[in-house]
Amino acid sequence: MKSQFPFPTVIRLTYYLRALEFLLTQNKSETSSDELAKLTNLSPEQVRKDLAYFGSFGKRGKGYPLPKLYEKIKELIGINKEWRLCLIGLGNLGKAIVRFKGFPERKLRFYAIFENDPKKIGGEFQGIRIFDVNKLPEVARELSLDIAVFTIPDDQVDKVYELVRKTNIRGILNFTSAPLHSEKDLFVKNVSIAQELEIITFYLSK
Amino acid sequence: MKSQFPFPTVIRLTYYLRALEFLLTQNKSETSSDELAKLTNLSPEQVRKDLAYFGSFGKRGKGYPLPKLYEKIKELIGINKEWRLCLIGLGNLGKAIVRFKGFPERKLRFYAIFENDPKKIGGEFQGIRIFDVNKLPEVARELSLDIAVFTIPDDQVDKVYELVRKTNIRGILNFTSAPLHSEKDLFVKNVSIAQELEIITFYLSK
Repeated sequence: MKSQFPFPTVIRLTYYLRALEFLLTQNKSETSSDELAKLTNLSPEQVRKDLAYFGSFGKRGKGYPLPKLYEKIKELIGINKEWRLCLIGLGNLGKAIVRFKGFPERKLRFYAIFENDPKKIGGEFQGIRIFDVNKLPEVARELSLDIAVFTIPDDQVDKVYELVRKTNIRGILNFTSAPLHSEKDLFVKNVSIAQELEIITFYLSK
Repeated sequence: MKSQFPFPTVIRLTYYLRALEFLLTQNKSETSSDELAKLTNLSPEQVRKDLAYFGSFGKRGKGYPLPKLYEKIKELIGINKEWRLCLIGLGNLGKAIVRFKGFPERKLRFYAIFENDPKKIGGEFQGIRIFDVNKLPEVARELSLDIAVFTIPDDQVDKVYELVRKTNIRGILNFTSAPLHSEKDLFVKNVSIAQELEIITFYLSK
């Protein structure tokens, strides 16, 4: 199956990023729209259109220079600089996310974990300090946190959201079932496992 | 912020589903495009267009009948019937997914867990039996499994994917960092936590 729905630009950018990282591990120095199309499951036309839009790479009939294109895509996505993350809620999901190995190379780094369990507060997980969630406003300021990952029970979302709004945190990755809305200066990305499964059942039902 | 990018139809359907479930818990019997727009963060025009496209609900100037619309959306997403899931890889992430409470009401139910750890094989988690992953083809047939959730280490993806291809499983929800492609008769939805974070950094960088 080819791409099942029209992907928005940002999603396509993240696909190019992964394709370019793969090609760089192969020690290649250039790539083509056909190669990128194959790796991303997008059409060569879409790839050419996007790359023409993002900047001028390569010459007609020649390939795109790999490291330059990679740097440009990273810049467009905003991961050419470091982002300081915190995790709120150290359950099974939170542990899996902190342990995930793909973050450091993306300059996405966890600087704090917040919990309401007195047995966990004051300790560490994977070398990251665990703070009392009620201390979030102070700790976020001190550590200049940018993004919060919510892996808390649904019934704690409202309270934690209010704490986050008192900080300079501008992005939330929300894994709870309680959807949050983006506001001015606070961008929310909801991740719903049920929704991901529904996308599958939708296509399987057709 | 209003919806940041044009959502494909299936995503909008899952948004309507959540909005309708919320309204049903409020014991309402009808809704309007304005109300649905507000709850989903979509425009009232988009809601009206979608609902007109999906079928004829309600009369001009009157509201949409709630239970009827809810059943229709469930049917469109394909969750009006039961789907039989299995989890492959019972680590932190796998445990979090099996424990997730939003599945039963969606008729998405786990019937088996697969592992390669002899200490886990033969046991149970949350009342679900844990099988040897090498037995996947037989167990999938016996239990008529429809969808597999991959929460395995990246280096096991190829092997497990080949095992799944020997079964009647037609959908994979892939949480590994190794992206898989959909094939004829096997739909793959990749979920990448790094990608979700990149969507945030993209918007925060603008």
